[in-house]
Amino acid sequence: MMFLSDNAASVHPRVWDAMRAADAADAPYDGDGLSQELDARFSDLFGRDCAALWVATGTAANCLALATLCPPHGGVVCHREAHIEVDEGGAPGFYLHGAKLMLADGDGAKLTPEAIRTVIDPIRDDVHQVQPHAISVTQASEYGRSYRPDELAAIGALAAERGLGLHVDGARFANAVAFLGCTPAEAVGPAQALSFGCVKNGGMSAEAIVFFDPALADVARYRRKRAGHLQSKGRFLAAQVMAMLEGDLWLANARAANAAATEIAGACGARLMHPVEANELFVRLSPTEREVLRGQGFGFYDWGADAARFVTAWNTRDDDARALAKAIANL
Amino acid sequence: MMFLSDNAASVHPRVWDAMRAADAADAPYDGDGLSQELDARFSDLFGRDCAALWVATGTAANCLALATLCPPHGGVVCHREAHIEVDEGGAPGFYLHGAKLMLADGDGAKLTPEAIRTVIDPIRDDVHQVQPHAISVTQASEYGRSYRPDELAAIGALAAERGLGLHVDGARFANAVAFLGCTPAEAVGPAQALSFGCVKNGGMSAEAIVFFDPALADVARYRRKRAGHLQSKGRFLAAQVMAMLEGDLWLANARAANAAATEIAGACGARLMHPVEANELFVRLSPTEREVLRGQGFGFYDWGADAARFVTAWNTRDDDARALAKAIANL
Amino acid sequence: MMFLSDNAASVHPRVWDAMRAADAADAPYDGDGLSQELDARFSDLFGRDCAALWVATGTAANCLALATLCPPHGGVVCHREAHIEVDEGGAPGFYLHGAKLMLADGDGAKLTPEAIRTVIDPIRDDVHQVQPHAISVTQASEYGRSYRPDELAAIGALAAERGLGLHVDGARFANAVAFLGCTPAEAVGPAQALSFGCVKNGGMSAEAIVFFDPALADVARYRRKRAGHLQSKGRFLAAQVMAMLEGDLWLANARAANAAATEIAGACGARLMHPVEANELFVRLSPTEREVLRGQGFGFYDWGADAARFVTAWNTRDDDARALAKAIANL
Amino acid sequence: MMFLSDNAASVHPRVWDAMRAADAADAPYDGDGLSQELDARFSDLFGRDCAALWVATGTAANCLALATLCPPHGGVVCHREAHIEVDEGGAPGFYLHGAKLMLADGDGAKLTPEAIRTVIDPIRDDVHQVQPHAISVTQASEYGRSYRPDELAAIGALAAERGLGLHVDGARFANAVAFLGCTPAEAVGPAQALSFGCVKNGGMSAEAIVFFDPALADVARYRRKRAGHLQSKGRFLAAQVMAMLEGDLWLANARAANAAATEIAGACGARLMHPVEANELFVRLSPTEREVLRGQGFGFYDWGADAARFVTAWNTRDDDARALAKAIANL
Repeated sequence: MMFLSDNAASVHPRVWDAMRAADAADAPYDGDGLSQELDARFSDLFGRDCAALWVATGTAANCLALATLCPPHGGVVCHREAHIEVDEGGAPGFYLHGAKLMLADGDGAKLTPEAIRTVIDPIRDDVHQVQPHAISVTQASEYGRSYRPDELAAIGALAAERGLGLHVDGARFANAVAFLGCTPAEAVGPAQALSFGCVKNGGMSAEAIVFFDPALADVARYRRKRAGHLQSKGRFLAAQVMAMLEGDLWLANARAANAAATEIAGACGARLMHPVEANELFVRLSPTEREVLRGQGFGFYDWGADAARFVTAWNTRDDDARALAKAIANL
Repeated sequence: MMFLSDNAASVHPRVWDAMRAADAADAPYDGDGLSQELDARFSDLFGRDCAALWVATGTAANCLALATLCPPHGGVVCHREAHIEVDEGGAPGFYLHGAKLMLADGDGAKLTPEAIRTVIDPIRDDVHQVQPHAISVTQASEYGRSYRPDELAAIGALAAERGLGLHVDGARFANAVAFLGCTPAEAVGPAQALSFGCVKNGGMSAEAIVFFDPALADVARYRRKRAGHLQSKGRFLAAQVMAMLEGDLWLANARAANAAATEIAGACGARLMHPVEANELFVRLSPTEREVLRGQGFGFYDWGADAARFVTAWNTRDDDARALAKAIANL
Repeated sequence: MMFLSDNAASVHPRVWDAMRAADAADAPYDGDGLSQELDARFSDLFGRDCAALWVATGTAANCLALATLCPPHGGVVCHREAHIEVDEGGAPGFYLHGAKLMLADGDGAKLTPEAIRTVIDPIRDDVHQVQPHAISVTQASEYGRSYRPDELAAIGALAAERGLGLHVDGARFANAVAFLGCTPAEAVGPAQALSFGCVKNGGMSAEAIVFFDPALADVARYRRKRAGHLQSKGRFLAAQVMAMLEGDLWLANARAANAAATEIAGACGARLMHPVEANELFVRLSPTEREVLRGQGFGFYDWGADAARFVTAWNTRDDDARALAKAIANL
Repeated sequence: MMFLSDNAASVHPRVWDAMRAADAADAPYDGDGLSQELDARFSDLFGRDCAALWVATGTAANCLALATLCPPHGGVVCHREAHIEVDEGGAPGFYLHGAKLMLADGDGAKLTPEAIRTVIDPIRDDVHQVQPHAISVTQASEYGRSYRPDELAAIGALAAERGLGLHVDGARFANAVAFLGCTPAEAVGPAQALSFGCVKNGGMSAEAIVFFDPALADVARYRRKRAGHLQSKGRFLAAQVMAMLEGDLWLANARAANAAATEIAGACGARLMHPVEANELFVRLSPTEREVLRGQGFGFYDWGADAARFVTAWNTRDDDARALAKAIANL
């Protein structure tokens, strides 16, 4: 009964099917029929003109997106605990040629206009200090918190006022949309670029970068190739993304994961460090308690000395979620 | 009857099977059982201590390998028509932080010690000129030519004498080994790193970087992550590579492709621009002749004004190869 | 009566003289007689084998030095208020190809082993997190505080224990040595590289990077050229550095600046935010008080809302220092 | 009697005077009065709106200029023997973050529209190949050849047609203008940026980057700082540039150097490898002949096995030029 992460879960059968169906040779790279459909599918989904590129990882998606919004001599404001800062091995420094991440605080790993201003307002407007060029938010956040549409709109308004680009790291975008019950467009706000996650949500090896300004995609296409991310059998990545969109599988999968998380959350009460607004739970548990749970066969990561992180996935079994809930309740 | 490229061919059934067998969740990234086996498998294959990393593309493999052999202020000698120079969208410049490719000539897109010396001997040993740090050869070459073991040994001796690293771009390494009938170790020579291709040989989305100096792999692991190439469900890449090695599928596939190329070559006679030593044919064909072949349903790329390139793959049907041979003979 | 900064003060007459004396054509770049003497002179000064390179700015000195100690995928621990973090326009990101600055806290902008451990101990030893490769300290610090030899030794011991390089930003190294009354070797501790400042201390356009591991200098020479910092009339930079070393002008100038700072400090009492251990004073002064001082002809920078920074230089006149001291005492 | 290079010649007395006059403290970096005047002075000189930045070296000037015209994933067309390709230690790769130099041929190290088209026309317009973004020409060229205004206009027309930027490396721009007898505007053509050389023409350590599109300068200012090229006592660099412009000292110096070259050229006849259109001579001389000249006290560089390069400078004495002419005539 594994709650370690959604990032290594099995691949959804419909994704497998779509990949198998794509086996026959087609044009290489992104010249195949499926890849060519992506722009239209995402334009439908978001109700505005989109250009979408597949890549294999969220790190590549985030960094290729950010590189279109921030020059090498600029900076990107993000949360101090954002994935791009903490868990991408310095990839933003590589892809953005040394641009700087500017770290803001914020409850639940979410940014606010105030937190962003606290970072950027003291920056002198001179060449001695790196100037901000973009903001990156994570939807849902590293602590499984989802930005409400009005929160994103407020951040977007600040970005526009200061001439900054806005990027959304949506490794768990599906979980946020499923939680919020809003449209995808509302959940992404006035961003120029979105990393649309699939791998954690039943995919195998495909994420999408969705550009709401297609001119940015034209630059990103060159940089994707230059980063070695233009796979020659790209049709298998496009197939994954298309399968996720088909019949809103992405939302169905996210709802399943969120439901499992909600089930468990019900048993956690005051143990919860953060409201559960996606598929992650951060639960105060003593070392002894964690040992008890592990003894019962539950797998999860420690979160510091006195807590644990549980992540549900599209295929978390109801029984397992209930068992974990019960086990926590019984502690 | 497509002879456009091997880079978009279907995936071999045994690769599919291996991927399906890897579906159950395992440790993320390269912590899974399959990924952990790669070092040992390649060490067996090459008869010396190897460390192997999967990546999704040959471009990433080449550039991550080269980045371990050449600092940002150095240079890499390669053939003027090498893939890293001509077809990787400037990826070496990105991964090597601006290091320089130093272009040598050579028949059949193959380097020789003489050609390399012609490039590096005139370089003054001062800070005004970029100094060479590595050599990259392609096995088989861009024109489907294979380096004989003694040719590689001679290049390796020069590299050692000058303190240069040696990298082998083996996007079609299997085809070279199949053609040469030598051991993999002989076909890679005294290189420090090999890009071991699978995608063109029946794989889907996995190549391997094989380091013959495991210390280089330790650096490459950080850089792979930093380049966004560390997939969280890496077990699916490891599965592809393992399937290719299992029972020497990689050689069987390459032999099939080579055999089809040889079949066609038999009909080309003096039309051949290069001896066929792998699975590519460069054939002198007038525009009219090409039109005739296309009219008969053959797909291929033009190669300049008066020639065409045909590439066979692991799954090229005997009938198709014979049909093409006959069609060329009938021109 | 300007106390804005030492970074734009006049050039010392002996520096001018040395530059004039270097006017006759000599070998270009660093082939001239003066440049060739630098290694020996610094080896004498520090009592160990040194290799020294001139560059035009402290930013270039710091970044070229750090680039020899930290690979692109690594990190450099420095104080949150270090010049490399705050005031170099992102130059470390450029020169180190995207390596990360890891920000530590510490009183008076000084690092301690504890502060460094607080930053590096939580870093997981895996490829997802940037690993530290070097430490950079500033002697004297951004707040004019000087590291005692035992403090540097302790930091050096930690660096050695963790396999980290150690760099000293010595833009005001002379002021620190003059304050500490120790040898230059004691004031630099077990560092591999020192940015030896001259410009703030009576020079015009030359700093020296002193490598205590000459092999690092060999790399830095290539990178200096590559950064456009190898001036063809480099003899004029060497002449400045040599003039500063000749007869210990560097120390005489620093003592003069420190003395002026001490004179002023005597009038500041509890207004001082930091002990004065070099040539900078951070003085609590209300807006009204600052207005009074400016009305009396004193120039200085505000330091936040309720303080001011005064910097003395080699040529600060005694009368001016006394006048400022008196003016502050009279507030 | 040294004809090695103009790059290490003495500094002109009026440059020294201007530097001394700038000694009194002024605002740091480029906030001083002299630096602030540069835009206006160059706007006057070129008869259009210019923004000008000083830097210490031609390498920095070239690379900062090119970085405003070409993104990291792009390419810059230049001559195969251009300084940026051959003699800058890979600086373009550093400053342009791995962008590619695309090498064209051309008589006398000069580009032509045809030569440029030969390089760029075969580039497929896809992401696999680096796309050209700019052209860089050298005025006067590496072989001392000067572009005529109509030649630059033709290159500029091609650049405009293909959407490419145009940069002029003017390390010896003064010599070209002096030779051509045209206006500076005619000698720079429709470029967006010019590296305006001073160091080889009587300066000490200052070149100017002149942007004919001031928006580019705004970016270059950040990058200059980021490259460690923003000197705090920048007034000494501005003073050099201003001194060169004052009373057209730059042209007087160049005329003197050119005249000396012409004097020598008169004695060379068929020995000349290139017409002398600036201050460099490439002269066919056997090893024995070179030995004879050196025995007579002449200093110069060998140019391959059977030739020598002679460079005159602003301060080449008439007697020395005549002596060399005579010595060559007597061979």
